[in-house]
Amino acid sequence: MFEAAELGKKIGKQEYDREEPELHTRLLKAQRRLAETNIPVIVIVSGVEGAGKGEVVNCLNKWLDTRGIETSAFWEESDEEAERPAYWRFWRRLPGRGTIGIMFGSWYTRPIIDFVYGRIDNPEYERQLHRINEFEHMLTQDDGLIVKFWFHLSRKDQQKRLELDKKEGRPSPILKKFSKRYTEFEHASEHALRLTDQGECPWHLVEAENRHYRDLTVGRILLESLESRLAGIETPAQAPAVESHELEQDRENTILDHVELDRTITDKNYHRTLKKHQRELYGATWKAKKKQRSVIAVFEGWDAAGKGGAIRRLTAAMDARLYKVISVAAPTDEEKAHHYLWRFWRHLPRAGYVTIYDRSWYGRVLVERVEGFAAPSEWQRAYQEINDFEEQLHEHGIILVKFWLQIDADEQLRRFQEREKTPWKEYKITDEDWRNREKWDDYRDAVNDMVAHTSTEYAPWNLIPANDKKLARVEVVKTVSRRIRNALSDD
Amino acid sequence: MFEAAELGKKIGKQEYDREEPELHTRLLKAQRRLAETNIPVIVIVSGVEGAGKGEVVNCLNKWLDTRGIETSAFWEESDEEAERPAYWRFWRRLPGRGTIGIMFGSWYTRPIIDFVYGRIDNPEYERQLHRINEFEHMLTQDDGLIVKFWFHLSRKDQQKRLELDKKEGRPSPILKKFSKRYTEFEHASEHALRLTDQGECPWHLVEAENRHYRDLTVGRILLESLESRLAGIETPAQAPAVESHELEQDRENTILDHVELDRTITDKNYHRTLKKHQRELYGATWKAKKKQRSVIAVFEGWDAAGKGGAIRRLTAAMDARLYKVISVAAPTDEEKAHHYLWRFWRHLPRAGYVTIYDRSWYGRVLVERVEGFAAPSEWQRAYQEINDFEEQLHEHGIILVKFWLQIDADEQLRRFQEREKTPWKEYKITDEDWRNREKWDDYRDAVNDMVAHTSTEYAPWNLIPANDKKLARVEVVKTVSRRIRNALSDD
Repeated sequence: MFEAAELGKKIGKQEYDREEPELHTRLLKAQRRLAETNIPVIVIVSGVEGAGKGEVVNCLNKWLDTRGIETSAFWEESDEEAERPAYWRFWRRLPGRGTIGIMFGSWYTRPIIDFVYGRIDNPEYERQLHRINEFEHMLTQDDGLIVKFWFHLSRKDQQKRLELDKKEGRPSPILKKFSKRYTEFEHASEHALRLTDQGECPWHLVEAENRHYRDLTVGRILLESLESRLAGIETPAQAPAVESHELEQDRENTILDHVELDRTITDKNYHRTLKKHQRELYGATWKAKKKQRSVIAVFEGWDAAGKGGAIRRLTAAMDARLYKVISVAAPTDEEKAHHYLWRFWRHLPRAGYVTIYDRSWYGRVLVERVEGFAAPSEWQRAYQEINDFEEQLHEHGIILVKFWLQIDADEQLRRFQEREKTPWKEYKITDEDWRNREKWDDYRDAVNDMVAHTSTEYAPWNLIPANDKKLARVEVVKTVSRRIRNALSDD
Repeated sequence: MFEAAELGKKIGKQEYDREEPELHTRLLKAQRRLAETNIPVIVIVSGVEGAGKGEVVNCLNKWLDTRGIETSAFWEESDEEAERPAYWRFWRRLPGRGTIGIMFGSWYTRPIIDFVYGRIDNPEYERQLHRINEFEHMLTQDDGLIVKFWFHLSRKDQQKRLELDKKEGRPSPILKKFSKRYTEFEHASEHALRLTDQGECPWHLVEAENRHYRDLTVGRILLESLESRLAGIETPAQAPAVESHELEQDRENTILDHVELDRTITDKNYHRTLKKHQRELYGATWKAKKKQRSVIAVFEGWDAAGKGGAIRRLTAAMDARLYKVISVAAPTDEEKAHHYLWRFWRHLPRAGYVTIYDRSWYGRVLVERVEGFAAPSEWQRAYQEINDFEEQLHEHGIILVKFWLQIDADEQLRRFQEREKTPWKEYKITDEDWRNREKWDDYRDAVNDMVAHTSTEYAPWNLIPANDKKLARVEVVKTVSRRIRNALSDD
């Protein structure tokens, strides 16, 4: 999940100065319109220590009219607060209709810290996270708009921040204490974000290393959330068009742009290593069978990225009795008559078997999103539905391996053209492929969001460089084999 | 909660035979219209052992067209099922759009049994219940209609059923095993119903002792659910009016009709016992202060039922530094700008203090429901919101005592007339009181539903007979005193 916020996004001072005035003006305008509505707005500012949450709060206070905004810092509990149920301190600070409440720290802080320090166990942690879901759901049903920000810093950047603070003579005691537990915090936070990433109030994961990028991004997301909510309640005549306010940065620097596409493998190396990993995989799948552990491998990727070829190298290494490949095409009538996850549930393997999904439930947040087959509310809530689904697989002991096969646009073009020229490959290229290609940027955004929302500790996305098909095949077989062997050795 | 399903509701064979044909016809008609929609319908049949769930399922199968209905009995898990995540068996039996799936046993069964037999602990139980909520929420968002029935039998009636079965030579092994744990099952089920009583798919608690009543009630609730959902998606021109299909029984036999209004107390007894309980209460409140346990007493009841007088007898027995009375009238502007629960949260007492709410958050499901100030979706989801709120109070160690002061319509009339005649009481009677009186039956239904949904193990409703004011006062003081002393002795 957090890998999507470690891309090194940056904005220079000049660009910031150019963008900021308009953003500022439009935020104020949105706030004025908000004041006439029934909508209480809650902005949650949370994330890793050292990410500059305080600076973000200051920035929002600078941009917005202070008469309709109130900031609440949930810091130490007062005795007044400690003597009442835990949520009392939040209830008393909830913003009224037409106003904005900025929550610096929030109902997330305590459960995460308690879990990291072992004061509550896993079921209790989840119970508290579910309570948060119900609380936020209740506020949303009461016309509330909740905008949740999570500011992320890599471990390295957090260390840098720590040293900088020290050098400047203002060492933070919490930062130091918390940075020692970076990994525990990362796991706990991922868990929290995953469980509470509701369609009606999704998390916005913001890379916090560069101050200008961080602040502009926050401003824009808040502006977009406000404007689209206001547009929803106003008559089309009154409402200004909601322009998309994405930063160039976000489009040009997605997680896919960090896949090392220039990696290659020599023919000699290819045959040798592929054989080796296939041998290991063969043994691993039999061992999994014996231990009754199922394996599910999911393949997504660009058209012509080589999914079929990679899958064949995988199945070649397994006993034919052990695996099944599910090709996901258009749903059948019966499938259409059910929830979109139904057709994936039905194919779940029995204990000890391997199922390979050639395209998968992620269609909901990829093709269905980009092509408009699913409404925004539908694909937005799908992240949580998918995470919940995969969590159930994981809890049941199923080993889940997810692949995105990445190629660049030039390579795709080359392959398309080649397919058109080669008689036995001609059937593989259709008008639809060309049409999809035109939406390259939309798909890139969708993949980035998908990884940000659904790459989890127990089912991370593997982004495979596939400009070199052979390298991709080796990586796929190796990854599956390694994941199975690791899972079995944990038993 | 279950006290609302132990009222001895009965329907004779004659009445059943008179009502059944029309119900049958309308159900079939609704089912035919359903077939042309996008809506999958899930009917959950659950409840205590011996309540005749199998008979209900047979009855539904008799009434509905078998071509659009499928019954799934979740009985022993097959090995196919055991080898997959627990929800697989439910996913595979989900009904398609336009059809009805009857779930005999469901996702509730296993968690409840596991909890009763100590195989899972409390946080894990709640985690599983929250998962159910999310599962049902997901289905509802996907246009699903979920109708949940819980069939209840009192312990006594369950015993009777057990003996009858034995006499007839068909003793049930599970019933016998489960009936030994009646109380544990009752607690576990209450917990489950409370946590999953969502506004979008509420529980219907059905008294199951009388077969005719049980079956007709099920048919009617299902019909109403279908018709109102179908009406929602059809243009008003097409949709037939949804008639209310309540049984006379339900209107004439609510939980309020079981309050023993003819109980009285002699003057001599009154003074003696009131004094005694007040003395005890005085000591109990100081002890609670010392132990930092707060007390919240909630008063609801008919106009002129004597809430004020009862509250005064309560406060007379406490040190003035310890208590606060909150009179709940129309909300202030500031209160209106927030969620309806906000104004109750803000008055929560500090540790060790007593707060008395003269009317309360229950206004949402009483006056706001009856007068139409809250939309049906709003008051329906309020049951769960309120239960969640009170659970937080309980978890924090707050002792919560809830009263409904019950009088009958004649007694109210007598008191209204007396107030009009007595100069210093005149201000106490308004046109509104007379107007409310006209909606007596609606209020009675609302109170019955309130008790059915919100009377919980840790915060049960106390229905106080108040035709005799003095008796009511004694009962109130005694109940508060006893609840505090019991809570403190549990520590």
